Amino acid sequence: MSPKYNLEIVMPQESNSNRRVVLAQRPNGLPDKSTLKLETTVLPQAGPGEMLLRTSYLSLDPYMRGRMNDTKSYAEPVKLGEVMTGQVIAQVVDTNCDGFEAGDYVLAGSGWQDYAVSDGVGIRNLGKSPENPSWFLGILGMPGYTAYAGLLKIGEPKPGETVVVAAASGPVGATVGQIAKLKGCRVVGIAGGSEKCAHVVENLGFDACIDHKADNFSDQLKAACPDGVDVYFENVGGRVLYAVLPLLNAFARMPVCGVVSWYNLTGLPDGPDFGPAIMGTILRMKVKVEGFIIFDSFPASLFKDFVRDMSGWLESGQVQYKEQVVDGLEHAPAALNDLLLGNCFGKMVVKVE
Amino acid sequence: MSPKYNLEIVMPQESNSNRRVVLAQRPNGLPDKSTLKLETTVLPQAGPGEMLLRTSYLSLDPYMRGRMNDTKSYAEPVKLGEVMTGQVIAQVVDTNCDGFEAGDYVLAGSGWQDYAVSDGVGIRNLGKSPENPSWFLGILGMPGYTAYAGLLKIGEPKPGETVVVAAASGPVGATVGQIAKLKGCRVVGIAGGSEKCAHVVENLGFDACIDHKADNFSDQLKAACPDGVDVYFENVGGRVLYAVLPLLNAFARMPVCGVVSWYNLTGLPDGPDFGPAIMGTILRMKVKVEGFIIFDSFPASLFKDFVRDMSGWLESGQVQYKEQVVDGLEHAPAALNDLLLGNCFGKMVVKVE
Repeated sequence: MSPKYNLEIVMPQESNSNRRVVLAQRPNGLPDKSTLKLETTVLPQAGPGEMLLRTSYLSLDPYMRGRMNDTKSYAEPVKLGEVMTGQVIAQVVDTNCDGFEAGDYVLAGSGWQDYAVSDGVGIRNLGKSPENPSWFLGILGMPGYTAYAGLLKIGEPKPGETVVVAAASGPVGATVGQIAKLKGCRVVGIAGGSEKCAHVVENLGFDACIDHKADNFSDQLKAACPDGVDVYFENVGGRVLYAVLPLLNAFARMPVCGVVSWYNLTGLPDGPDFGPAIMGTILRMKVKVEGFIIFDSFPASLFKDFVRDMSGWLESGQVQYKEQVVDGLEHAPAALNDLLLGNCFGKMVVKVE
Repeated sequence: MSPKYNLEIVMPQESNSNRRVVLAQRPNGLPDKSTLKLETTVLPQAGPGEMLLRTSYLSLDPYMRGRMNDTKSYAEPVKLGEVMTGQVIAQVVDTNCDGFEAGDYVLAGSGWQDYAVSDGVGIRNLGKSPENPSWFLGILGMPGYTAYAGLLKIGEPKPGETVVVAAASGPVGATVGQIAKLKGCRVVGIAGGSEKCAHVVENLGFDACIDHKADNFSDQLKAACPDGVDVYFENVGGRVLYAVLPLLNAFARMPVCGVVSWYNLTGLPDGPDFGPAIMGTILRMKVKVEGFIIFDSFPASLFKDFVRDMSGWLESGQVQYKEQVVDGLEHAPAALNDLLLGNCFGKMVVKVE
């Protein structure tokens, strides 16, 4: 984990209190000490029709950086003083809600805090003893579904095509690549560092994985894609995108899931301007580039297909999954920075309880 | 027409000779005197199964600049010493081809020359007396079909949506906007100068047209799109694109038909780098951006729909069409430069005979 900063107020959890991480100040670039604050409040109580949830795992995801900005986007920004947004696995403590019992595990959007009160709307009940509950924050949840829907519905990979995926050891990229392999594609990953690249090839079965930190990265990527690139699953933007552009084949597809390398920008970076390269390639090669936000862009029926397919692939061992578990809510802000800087390995979750 | 240069060899056409404009040197930036040369050769003869065509009108189109480069693209570049590529309306002089008679007008791809020999493959017979034969190079041909297919099949405009189209007085942009009006959209054009803007609003019926040369162009564009932008038909790139990006609505569509403002670039322009603005907008607003090349990207059946619809709209007066006719093959190179610089008004054709 990054040694760069820790929250100033770090205190053990006491009974009858609720620790929560709130947005104290909008960051200018990478979040720092002034961005998020840990505060302690009174333990909330479940009223009529409500239940009290205790957070087990908090998911950390790149989109969280965007929610810290006061920018027009697909979701409302987190307000100053509000609890940071985020998906969690929680356990029901007390309940006056139909359909939930004490001890049930649930998937909720209650954010960075020990406890939360919910009216049950939008809460998924995972039962008393789900196997690997934290996986519902990853391979069986939003990141896994993002990979599945973005690749299959926008990327539309065909057997024999070449699929390139950035952030290949992350929860979305790793899943994209493994599904593309199952669909008969040549799959080339891009990751930061030799350890991640080795994992992607040896454990996940990609055909190749190129280290974007290497000096001759572009040349290596070109050599790994002798037939060009038919699908580029965009997670990162920046120099990785610019290295892929000249390799795109006619009628290539580019699902745009994220541009994490740019999330901490405070303005447009120095030139040259790659706008003509992006738009000129789209034109000449008849490329389709499509941004998507997972729970906005696809019909609800697709989620059922995902759960069925992914459960089967995990059971048969055709898809592998790697988690990085950070212990303690107080370490979540530094862990999010690690995620934004690529200093993570696998799906990052925070064990809260 | 631009006074910047004329071809050095300008000679009247003699019988038994064929004048043709060949690519003498690949341009670095805007084409100049060294790029295209007019040369005179012997009049070709039609052999068995062939016919001799005499060019009536040559079409000038922005894509021609791309064919002068030796770059990976959707079509082969013109080779050095070869006749410049281009669509023409020609008349059959002599024929040994089935299905063609002397005096027939045809639509051919025989390029920048007085005469050409053809085996008839890919040649469309327009009959002995087509009304407005040059229109088959414009509103009833490639530019018209480009507007129709790109707008309707990629742009998918819905009644009440806002459609923005650049190069709004050009043959593609003017047609895009008029079709969008027929589909019940609010249509905002962008053009260079007050004369073109007035034409677009008064004669073509757009709701507004903004002069991209105005100092406060971005503010004017924003004011003309109070409900944001649902479809941006991309013809030009550059500052027009960058002014539209912040206005795009969720699930906006951007057919990419051309980026003419960038066609004379010799490398990436100075910064800042708008890459993050382009890709970040695509992501946050779930935008679909799709490049297309008209005769590659759509099923042949669509062309029949186009001919039926467009003929009807022209006949009823629901679609207006404006041509700029340049007289003489020797003036074609300077006229192409005018087109690339926006110094044209309406669909540009060269009257060759």
